[in-house]
Amino acid sequence: MNIKQYLREMGALVDAGLEQYMLRPEGALAGHIEAMRYSLFAGGKRVRPVLCLAAASALKADPQPLLPLACALECIHTYSLIHDDLPAMDNDDLRRGMPTSHKKFGEAAAILAGDGLLSYAFELLSRPETASSLPPAEQLRIIHLVARAIGPQGMVGGQVLDMEAEGAGEKVTLEQLRRIHRRKTGALITASVQTGAIAGRATAEQFAALTAYGEQVGLAFQIVDDLLNVTGTPETLGKAAGSDAARGKATYPALLGLEETRRLTQEAVEAAEQALTGFAESADPLRHLARYIIARNN
Amino acid sequence: MNIKQYLREMGALVDAGLEQYMLRPEGALAGHIEAMRYSLFAGGKRVRPVLCLAAASALKADPQPLLPLACALECIHTYSLIHDDLPAMDNDDLRRGMPTSHKKFGEAAAILAGDGLLSYAFELLSRPETASSLPPAEQLRIIHLVARAIGPQGMVGGQVLDMEAEGAGEKVTLEQLRRIHRRKTGALITASVQTGAIAGRATAEQFAALTAYGEQVGLAFQIVDDLLNVTGTPETLGKAAGSDAARGKATYPALLGLEETRRLTQEAVEAAEQALTGFAESADPLRHLARYIIARNN
Repeated sequence: MNIKQYLREMGALVDAGLEQYMLRPEGALAGHIEAMRYSLFAGGKRVRPVLCLAAASALKADPQPLLPLACALECIHTYSLIHDDLPAMDNDDLRRGMPTSHKKFGEAAAILAGDGLLSYAFELLSRPETASSLPPAEQLRIIHLVARAIGPQGMVGGQVLDMEAEGAGEKVTLEQLRRIHRRKTGALITASVQTGAIAGRATAEQFAALTAYGEQVGLAFQIVDDLLNVTGTPETLGKAAGSDAARGKATYPALLGLEETRRLTQEAVEAAEQALTGFAESADPLRHLARYIIARNN
Repeated sequence: MNIKQYLREMGALVDAGLEQYMLRPEGALAGHIEAMRYSLFAGGKRVRPVLCLAAASALKADPQPLLPLACALECIHTYSLIHDDLPAMDNDDLRRGMPTSHKKFGEAAAILAGDGLLSYAFELLSRPETASSLPPAEQLRIIHLVARAIGPQGMVGGQVLDMEAEGAGEKVTLEQLRRIHRRKTGALITASVQTGAIAGRATAEQFAALTAYGEQVGLAFQIVDDLLNVTGTPETLGKAAGSDAARGKATYPALLGLEETRRLTQEAVEAAEQALTGFAESADPLRHLARYIIARNN
């Protein structure tokens, strides 16, 4: 299969879904909705929704009815980027070559755009229409696992640990770094795969296999992000390269060197493919996605 | 009935629930959990969870199994206070006589405490254990209406409109003020009553009546808040009185004068009681709560 074409097609499906399910910038709240849409349509690769849809496809489920769930995952990811970029957090001016939300709309509007996207994600996750393709108990299970993945013990907790590690200025160990990223990046990526798995009516065994796949892909994704921050160019990154190093941020390359870091990503991708051995060809998109993640350059 | 005693008892039940369901400040994330708990246990009156439990009681439902839902409403309310107090928003240093979250823990930690509480609220709302007392489809319905009530078209949208009105410095009309507050304060209060109504297995008619009650109570609550900001003392308010006026904020007293504003609260409370005419004595707590809200002094 052609993974680039697959990604294009699935990305277009997700974009169409976001266009359909996201609020229109009309009425008294046009400015607020515009701010949410600005970051939502800023050229993201839609990795999380595509992983969700590909996991459902691996179980031969129709992706179309899951689109609101997949779109909710992208809303959550976007909220986390907006808040992470804030002056009090990473204080980033650019993302994907464009001004960050607070640079464009001001700090209050950016905080509220993030809050709005997070709340709206749960509106999408809990849509009553989903009941036509998924039993309510399974839809609840998805909401619960997504909420856990992004809360204090997941993504938000990871950002807390990341900020604390940066502030402490101490040498972060590999174990700490893994713990930070398992939460900060890994948890939502794993939850995205799990959402597709539940929506595809996975057995307990299939769910466990897809969870293992998601964890390895989440790990690989973060390591590659760290690598690109060292080896990328401003053109491919959409912001200055080397910003992690300039900030004294703990990263895999800083801790392990480039060669060992590259070996680790390879290892994670192999483990991800390994997790899928019980699946037939329907899981090929997931296999290719894992390999694509380490080959990407932005 | 003795409403103060009822409020004390229900407040104690909610506090015990929050103690039970909130994370303990242990491990690597102790600081983050401490920040969430600091605002959660800062002496709030628990109006939203108590309204939720009282609505369920009006339908003769046992409040105990609904406690996680009621606690989630308090987590959401607390997140909104933390974010509203931020320097980029209302820039408040004190709340209930104590330093606000960003004053106490720093701005990044405060943003993340809010984000953590919001995500955790959905973890509580989607708990699988609730299925033992409520069908999954009804639990989903609660999540959906709460998400709507606090998102772009609800509470977050209200805060956006409030910030924009303040920034514009123009004369806000009564209609605009009502629209702001229907979203900013009213939506979550109404959703709290609706949560109790669904959990108490309300009929469509009962649900509509309780919704009308919630809307009127939400309106009365906001008007009284505005009144107290004018007439309160630093001791009863826990912050300087007259801060709205100093900020040039549009309020009911500023628009209508004290007398007319007091008449409006009375009107709203009577409409709230009117909405409950179909209910027997079991709705007495709701009736007393409505009256208590305009009699309160903090």
